[in-house]
Amino acid sequence: MLGPSDLTVYLSGEIHTDWRDQIIAACETVGLRLDFTGPVTDHGASDDCGAAILGEEENPFWRDHKGAKINAIRTTVLMEQADVVVVRFGEKYKQWNAAFDAGYAAALGTPLIVMHPPEHTHALKEINGAAQATCETPEQVAQILTYVQTGRLSGR
Amino acid sequence: MLGPSDLTVYLSGEIHTDWRDQIIAACETVGLRLDFTGPVTDHGASDDCGAAILGEEENPFWRDHKGAKINAIRTTVLMEQADVVVVRFGEKYKQWNAAFDAGYAAALGTPLIVMHPPEHTHALKEINGAAQATCETPEQVAQILTYVQTGRLSGR
Amino acid sequence: MLGPSDLTVYLSGEIHTDWRDQIIAACETVGLRLDFTGPVTDHGASDDCGAAILGEEENPFWRDHKGAKINAIRTTVLMEQADVVVVRFGEKYKQWNAAFDAGYAAALGTPLIVMHPPEHTHALKEINGAAQATCETPEQVAQILTYVQTGRLSGR
Amino acid sequence: MLGPSDLTVYLSGEIHTDWRDQIIAACETVGLRLDFTGPVTDHGASDDCGAAILGEEENPFWRDHKGAKINAIRTTVLMEQADVVVVRFGEKYKQWNAAFDAGYAAALGTPLIVMHPPEHTHALKEINGAAQATCETPEQVAQILTYVQTGRLSGR
Amino acid sequence: MLGPSDLTVYLSGEIHTDWRDQIIAACETVGLRLDFTGPVTDHGASDDCGAAILGEEENPFWRDHKGAKINAIRTTVLMEQADVVVVRFGEKYKQWNAAFDAGYAAALGTPLIVMHPPEHTHALKEINGAAQATCETPEQVAQILTYVQTGRLSGR
Amino acid sequence: MLGPSDLTVYLSGEIHTDWRDQIIAACETVGLRLDFTGPVTDHGASDDCGAAILGEEENPFWRDHKGAKINAIRTTVLMEQADVVVVRFGEKYKQWNAAFDAGYAAALGTPLIVMHPPEHTHALKEINGAAQATCETPEQVAQILTYVQTGRLSGR
Amino acid sequence: MLGPSDLTVYLSGEIHTDWRDQIIAACETVGLRLDFTGPVTDHGASDDCGAAILGEEENPFWRDHKGAKINAIRTTVLMEQADVVVVRFGEKYKQWNAAFDAGYAAALGTPLIVMHPPEHTHALKEINGAAQATCETPEQVAQILTYVQTGRLSGR
Amino acid sequence: MLGPSDLTVYLSGEIHTDWRDQIIAACETVGLRLDFTGPVTDHGASDDCGAAILGEEENPFWRDHKGAKINAIRTTVLMEQADVVVVRFGEKYKQWNAAFDAGYAAALGTPLIVMHPPEHTHALKEINGAAQATCETPEQVAQILTYVQTGRLSGR
Repeated sequence: MLGPSDLTVYLSGEIHTDWRDQIIAACETVGLRLDFTGPVTDHGASDDCGAAILGEEENPFWRDHKGAKINAIRTTVLMEQADVVVVRFGEKYKQWNAAFDAGYAAALGTPLIVMHPPEHTHALKEINGAAQATCETPEQVAQILTYVQTGRLSGR
Repeated sequence: MLGPSDLTVYLSGEIHTDWRDQIIAACETVGLRLDFTGPVTDHGASDDCGAAILGEEENPFWRDHKGAKINAIRTTVLMEQADVVVVRFGEKYKQWNAAFDAGYAAALGTPLIVMHPPEHTHALKEINGAAQATCETPEQVAQILTYVQTGRLSGR
Repeated sequence: MLGPSDLTVYLSGEIHTDWRDQIIAACETVGLRLDFTGPVTDHGASDDCGAAILGEEENPFWRDHKGAKINAIRTTVLMEQADVVVVRFGEKYKQWNAAFDAGYAAALGTPLIVMHPPEHTHALKEINGAAQATCETPEQVAQILTYVQTGRLSGR
Repeated sequence: MLGPSDLTVYLSGEIHTDWRDQIIAACETVGLRLDFTGPVTDHGASDDCGAAILGEEENPFWRDHKGAKINAIRTTVLMEQADVVVVRFGEKYKQWNAAFDAGYAAALGTPLIVMHPPEHTHALKEINGAAQATCETPEQVAQILTYVQTGRLSGR
Repeated sequence: MLGPSDLTVYLSGEIHTDWRDQIIAACETVGLRLDFTGPVTDHGASDDCGAAILGEEENPFWRDHKGAKINAIRTTVLMEQADVVVVRFGEKYKQWNAAFDAGYAAALGTPLIVMHPPEHTHALKEINGAAQATCETPEQVAQILTYVQTGRLSGR
Repeated sequence: MLGPSDLTVYLSGEIHTDWRDQIIAACETVGLRLDFTGPVTDHGASDDCGAAILGEEENPFWRDHKGAKINAIRTTVLMEQADVVVVRFGEKYKQWNAAFDAGYAAALGTPLIVMHPPEHTHALKEINGAAQATCETPEQVAQILTYVQTGRLSGR
Repeated sequence: MLGPSDLTVYLSGEIHTDWRDQIIAACETVGLRLDFTGPVTDHGASDDCGAAILGEEENPFWRDHKGAKINAIRTTVLMEQADVVVVRFGEKYKQWNAAFDAGYAAALGTPLIVMHPPEHTHALKEINGAAQATCETPEQVAQILTYVQTGRLSGR
Repeated sequence: MLGPSDLTVYLSGEIHTDWRDQIIAACETVGLRLDFTGPVTDHGASDDCGAAILGEEENPFWRDHKGAKINAIRTTVLMEQADVVVVRFGEKYKQWNAAFDAGYAAALGTPLIVMHPPEHTHALKEINGAAQATCETPEQVAQILTYVQTGRLSGR
């Protein structure tokens, strides 16, 4: 009671596992009223959107550039609308755009939850320092969001 | 007529008496359309949320830290959404987070109503100086909110 | 078509004639979808609200002060929510709070419409200089709002 | 899924062809949930609004001035509400207000899509440099908006 | 010691008496390091600047308009640079631009000192409600600025 | 006296005549203390900077893009630092970046002076509507800046 | 090298011990270039400033109010100018204005250092959660500021 | 001429090569007037600052946390003061804090220059999409800064 009735949560970062679905399902089970948003998770579409819509490019830099900027339209809108940003760092890839989103959220003053495997603790220390919570599993994110909206801890 | 149809009121501060319920009930009696929000008022949950979700800590400083930052997710979201902030200082405890919320509201330019027993007048003078109204009872808060939304003074 | 579907208009200034009702009625006739807001127009309630809710004061300065700050809660909330601010200067009184609201709107970058009798042109030149439109009648305000929302000029 | 459920798109610039209708129709075909807004596209009303509502002017500069500032009420409100701004430069006229809107959007940090014939590439290089996408047809704009909201590329 | 070493004070309002010079002289006597700024106090120049530089106008409204907007360049720059704004209301004239400046300062969150004769207390209650101090004489303004910069009260 | 001691003026727009030098010289004659800034006025350098520093491009769109974005670093910094923006529209070219800068200044709330030949009055009406002054000659700009800083009208 | 050459540090909170002097002396010893600011630490002057300058009040609430708002002029200016805010909580008093300043700094996004005795850890957990560092001694604050400006740790 | 006389450039990212010194030396050779800032580049001090000043921690997470937040004081101050941010991604490590700084700069609207080896083009496409320039060598950064401040291209 008295928690935020409207809460928009942006789920940023790693796109190759189903962590977003796990969070969403866990929150639905508890009956939370949340709007979840996130980047385009179809890796191929995300890479190709610039060339597919605006025309092919020979130079890979500009091909990427066109796609990245179209993706940035969505990201910018959603980051500005978000009340809370969750960023997940996975095991693979450089994931610099996840860290970029974390910096963007920090500059906006939007509360930030970081999820990553324990072996990344040292490498992510600056980002964890800017976050309100650091955790390892989708269940923990769902528990945090449950607590933020309802004030209830699961299992009590 | 012509008052704010949507008005979100954050009720900050003391969590050991039912002052929030009194304000809410009094406003419902008059038929106001307000969204009330507030911190988690289950003292135990508020203290334990960090350790319960993110894991226990031996060092009490970090145990408190984890909980405080999870609570800050909720507080930050609700403070940014609030049109009016009410802060109550009670008889007991240090209540520094109540004063912290008052400073936060003042920096955002959000109108501030302070409620406290008369013996705290001198100690709260800076915060009262930043407030739009200082009062002592939940009824007075309800009357202010009634006037702000409807333009009517009770008893007229 | 393609105009702003949600438009909140704050009607500031003179409270002794029915100019607000005229604007609202004229806009309803045309079928506009507008939210009109404004200050408390019950002069007695506006003057007495501080003393009535927070207790009487012997010193007239503080009696006025308490009332003015409670009125400021409403004004601040509504000015921040407004998409357009209309300020009317009438024939009588100093009306400094009307000019104060105009300055407040200008600093926020909110579009400003000023309505006043022609004899005030020179005295209001700075405020007209900050306004998007200066007019004399409620009908003109309604026509401006009609045009802003629908793109149609009346009589065409 | 997970895209922005509410997305307001301001369609700025050239008013003599039906490019706005083409974008709107193409987005409706795909079933997008978008709010489209734009300037008044009735050229005569746009030129005459000031004189028609506020009174005629002998001096053409002031006649234009009154109209431009009333149009600015609408433009300012809609630009502040927009999540994405699309600016089209056509073949004719100076179209300085289109470029003005692009600069306004850039300063607000609102994502910008520019649509123009290829012969304007060099003259529009600064504006394209500030944009997230440059394209030539309404279909491309609709495809970008489809991708931004749904994450889907047409034809896949 | 430890006060603000650089402090810019904008002196707004009445331009027909030497209250600005009295404040400046009193602050210099105490050895304060302040930058005082203010509007153009040459009434004739202030009224004529638009017509003199940009060309005469037959219509008095536009003559005033051109002048008012050139004055607004100076006012806007100085209001944005000011750390403290002092607004004086005198005995005569409507002085709506003084009240406009007070509203502008309030919206920016800039501390505001209001100086006026006691008979204006009721008419200025909203503006006093937004101010940090209300006083009657230039000496009091100088004493406030002395205290703000040095922490010392005169006569102690 | 009491005018802005530090005043940074960004001179945007047309780069093929010596209008900037005329304004600067006229202001120096009067002894003003102004910091003038502006875009790179070496047309060749401005067009080539991207390719020269970051490498040539076959596609003219990307060649322009690289240059435009490097120029945007300078423009962005200077627009954010400017207290006043002057935009000149000349006789030739599309000059869309001049209009873009005007929109950028308007969104930031920076006072804007527009200079253009009289035949552009109708095409520039929206931009003039957002400006504090519209004039035709560098001398007029210098007179405005003189008045803004010193409060003196030339010839008096 | 490469640290912030200009750094303004506001020292908020407890005014009955010489902790500010200890920090300043320790930083001067290391040769830092810092501007330290803080509230008026003459308790009597701070309590009396309103009554002494603006006139006595019978009602203690208003006597405090006038003083608190004059003190707020200084605090507001200095908090807005500060790059870093240090807040010390001592053993005695309610110290709500210290907590208010911490909340104000947090809302502005200004880095915050909190200094307090260890027994206050639980009561200050929300404020420590919003801070970049929590420490117990002036020497630690000086070491943090040394590190922030020079990148050097003492004793290395 | 007419470029930014004061320009503060934050050099973020990789700390194991002397790329910062190369940029600074190249800019000094040309005679630029720039203030360069950056993070603490002494890796050991950067890792240990929290434990050294605030006390050791058994848990590596909290040891990192204390250090990261003290480093964040410096980073936050410098990022807010910077006119331009340069971010270098090297060959090794995760470098998530470099990407975090890029996101922070993007959210603030500060112009961004990215420097990285060509093999990172695809992984950095989102960050390059948010940047004003992407390059590979310190010489290119120095040439960009030279052009931004002086308008001159080297070798012309």
